Amino acid sequence: MQTSHEFPARLVQAIRQVCGTDPVPLHAPTFAGQEWAYVKDCLDSTFVSSVGAYVDRFEDELAGFTGARHAVAVVNGTAALHVALLLAGVQRDDEVLLPALTFVATANAVHYCGATPHFVDSQRETLGMDPSALRDWLKHSSEQRDGVCINKQTGRPIRALLPMHTFGHPCDMAGLMEVAGEFRLTLVEDAAESLGSSYQGQQTGTLGKIGILSFNGNKTITTGGGGALLTNDTALARRAKHLTTTAKQAHRWEFEHDEIGFNYRLPNINAALGCAQLEQLPGFLASKRRLHDKYRDVLAGIPEVSLVSEPVGCHSNYWLQALMLGDQIASQRDEVLAATNSAGLMTRPVWNLMHRQRPYQNCPRAPLPVAEYLAQRLVNIPSSAGLA
Amino acid sequence: MQTSHEFPARLVQAIRQVCGTDPVPLHAPTFAGQEWAYVKDCLDSTFVSSVGAYVDRFEDELAGFTGARHAVAVVNGTAALHVALLLAGVQRDDEVLLPALTFVATANAVHYCGATPHFVDSQRETLGMDPSALRDWLKHSSEQRDGVCINKQTGRPIRALLPMHTFGHPCDMAGLMEVAGEFRLTLVEDAAESLGSSYQGQQTGTLGKIGILSFNGNKTITTGGGGALLTNDTALARRAKHLTTTAKQAHRWEFEHDEIGFNYRLPNINAALGCAQLEQLPGFLASKRRLHDKYRDVLAGIPEVSLVSEPVGCHSNYWLQALMLGDQIASQRDEVLAATNSAGLMTRPVWNLMHRQRPYQNCPRAPLPVAEYLAQRLVNIPSSAGLA
Repeated sequence: MQTSHEFPARLVQAIRQVCGTDPVPLHAPTFAGQEWAYVKDCLDSTFVSSVGAYVDRFEDELAGFTGARHAVAVVNGTAALHVALLLAGVQRDDEVLLPALTFVATANAVHYCGATPHFVDSQRETLGMDPSALRDWLKHSSEQRDGVCINKQTGRPIRALLPMHTFGHPCDMAGLMEVAGEFRLTLVEDAAESLGSSYQGQQTGTLGKIGILSFNGNKTITTGGGGALLTNDTALARRAKHLTTTAKQAHRWEFEHDEIGFNYRLPNINAALGCAQLEQLPGFLASKRRLHDKYRDVLAGIPEVSLVSEPVGCHSNYWLQALMLGDQIASQRDEVLAATNSAGLMTRPVWNLMHRQRPYQNCPRAPLPVAEYLAQRLVNIPSSAGLA
Repeated sequence: MQTSHEFPARLVQAIRQVCGTDPVPLHAPTFAGQEWAYVKDCLDSTFVSSVGAYVDRFEDELAGFTGARHAVAVVNGTAALHVALLLAGVQRDDEVLLPALTFVATANAVHYCGATPHFVDSQRETLGMDPSALRDWLKHSSEQRDGVCINKQTGRPIRALLPMHTFGHPCDMAGLMEVAGEFRLTLVEDAAESLGSSYQGQQTGTLGKIGILSFNGNKTITTGGGGALLTNDTALARRAKHLTTTAKQAHRWEFEHDEIGFNYRLPNINAALGCAQLEQLPGFLASKRRLHDKYRDVLAGIPEVSLVSEPVGCHSNYWLQALMLGDQIASQRDEVLAATNSAGLMTRPVWNLMHRQRPYQNCPRAPLPVAEYLAQRLVNIPSSAGLA
C-alpha cells in the first residue's frame, strides 16, 4: 500500500475535497449581514457600553428565536453559567452533576459558586449526559433527605443537573428531565454550543429551568465575546438582570446594592454585532447542515471513521462537525490530528475529560466508560458556515 | 431674595454656563479618532473574539502609556480586580483593606476571592485611603504573626491593601506604601477611575505590586466594557494572562487546564475601540483639565460649594468633576441632586458607603468619620471631555 493511500492521507484528501487546499480554521465567523451598519450606528450613538438599545433588541430577538420567554445578555457563556447556577440555588459546598466530557467552563462555573463538580458519563448516541447511567449512579450513590438529594459518600447536597449539548447535538432531555424530577435536582441547560438546535421541536436552552448560550468567536453566531441566560420564569429573569448588573437597586441617583452582584452585562457594541449575526442564523444553520452532507459524502469512502450525526428526534445546529474514529484506528488519534493540522486543516480532539484536569482530579465521579471511549475517538474538523 | 437666586438655582445656572442648556449626561465618550477604521478593520479580519492583533496592540500601548512593564487586557475592571487580588495571594477567609468610600466593584472583587472586605477611612485632601488613620487603626487592631498581619478581632489574615483613586485623584501613595511595608500587606492599586493620573510623576496603577484600569463606557477612554491589569513583574503578568484565559496550557491541540481559570479575556473588537480611544487620551486629558478650569471660574461666585482639585504633587485625569458642599448646605445634598437632574444636568452623589450596603454591613471596619463626611458632601457634575 502506498503512503498516500494510508489512512491519515486519505482523510486529508477527503477533507480537502470539502474545504479546498488553503489553510482552514476550525471555525471562523461569517460577517455578511448588517454587522458594520449596526456597529457603526452603535458607535455613532456613543452608547457602546452597558446600557443601550442593541442590548435590549438582542435580548428580545434571542427570546423570539428560541421561544424562551426571557433572554438576558451577558459578557460570555461562562458568566451566564455562573449566574444560572446561582439562580438554580447552587450554594457553597453543594455538588452539581455535569458530564466529564465538556469544556472546562462548565466545571469552572460550578467552582465559582463555591460548589463541587460531580462528573457523570455520556452517551454514544448523543455525546451528552446518559440519563440511564445517571439514574443507576444516583440510585446507589445518593439518598433523599428532607427533599434534598445527598451524596452518600461526601454528605453534600447535590443541587443541580447541568447537561451540555456537545458540538450542538441535543442530549436526551426527556430522560434527563425525568431523572431530575425523580431525584429533585434543578435542571440547568448548558446550551453554549447549541443555539439553533432543537429537541422534539423545542430549542435547546429552553427545556430546563434556566439555560445558557455562548456567542464566543468560535460559536455559530458571535458577539466577539458574549452569552445569554434563557428562562420562562419572569422572576428568575429579573433576578438574572439584577445579579448581572451589580445588584444595584433602581434609583434616580443612589448607589444601593442589595446583594453581591456581578459586572456581567454585555456591552452594547457587542450586542450590535449580535443583532446582525442573529439575522443570519437561519442561513448559517442551513450552511452547516449542507457542510455536514458534503462531509458525509466524501467520508463515505473512508470506513475507518464515521461522521457524527444528529440524534433521532433532534435537529442539530452542527456547530462543530465531528469524526468518530473506528476501533481499529482509535489509537492513531494523535497521528490524525498531526496529519490534518500539518496539512493546514485545523482539527482538534474533544476536550480532555474533566476528571483528568489537575484542578478537578479529586472531584466525585461516576464510572465514565463512555466518556473515556469518546475522548479517545472524537476529532472535530473544519466547521465554518462559510465552507458550504 | 428671589427664588432664582436661591442656591440650587444659582448652581444650575453656573453649570449651564459651562455645559449649555441642553440635557447633558454625567460622562459620555468621544469617538473622534480612528474608532470606525479600527473596528471595521477588526470585523473585516473576522478576528473579533479572544485572539487578535488589537488585543496585543492595546496591551502594548497601555504599557507604553502608563510606563508599566506589562498590561493584560480583560473583559472589565471588576474582572481585573478579581485577578489582581488572586495574584496578590488573597485567599478564602483572608481580609483585604479597602476604602468604605468606593464603587461596589472594589468590595465585590474581594468577595469573589472568598475573602472579606475590611473598610478603612478616607482623607479630605485626596478622597482616598488615609495612611495615617490606617496606621493608627492597624496598630491597635492587628498583630504580626509569622510575618502575616492578623486582625486581632477576627483572627483572619489581612493580606492586601487596596486603595482606589477616587474620581481620578491619586491617593497618598507614599504614605500607603509605607504602611503596606510596615504591616506586610501587598499593595494592589484600584486605578479604575484614574487612567492618565500621576503621583509624583508616576502613573497611577503602576505604583503597587499590581494595578488595574477600567474602560467601561463612563470612563476616560472606553472599550464598551473592558479593563486591564498593570504590573512590572513578568511572572505575575504571565500568570495574569494564564488565569484570564481559562488557565489552558499551550499545546497544538490538547485541552489541558492546570488550574481554575476564568473567561476574562477582552474581545478583539473591544480592543480595536480601545486602540482608537487611547490615541486620543492626551487630548481627552487636556479637555478634562480645561473643563475643570471652566467650572472653577463659574463656581467662584457660589461660596456654598467648592470644586475638588488634584492633590498636591499629583496630576489628576479629572475623570469626574466633583463639588464639595459646604457645611451650611451639606444637608441639602438631595435638593441639589433633584434640582440639577430636573434641569437636565446629570449629577449624582458619591457612592453609598460600603459598610452601609446590605451585603457588607457586618464586615470589619475602622472608624469612618471622613468617609461619612465626604459621602454627605460630594456631588459629581457633568464631566465629559467633549464639554471643553
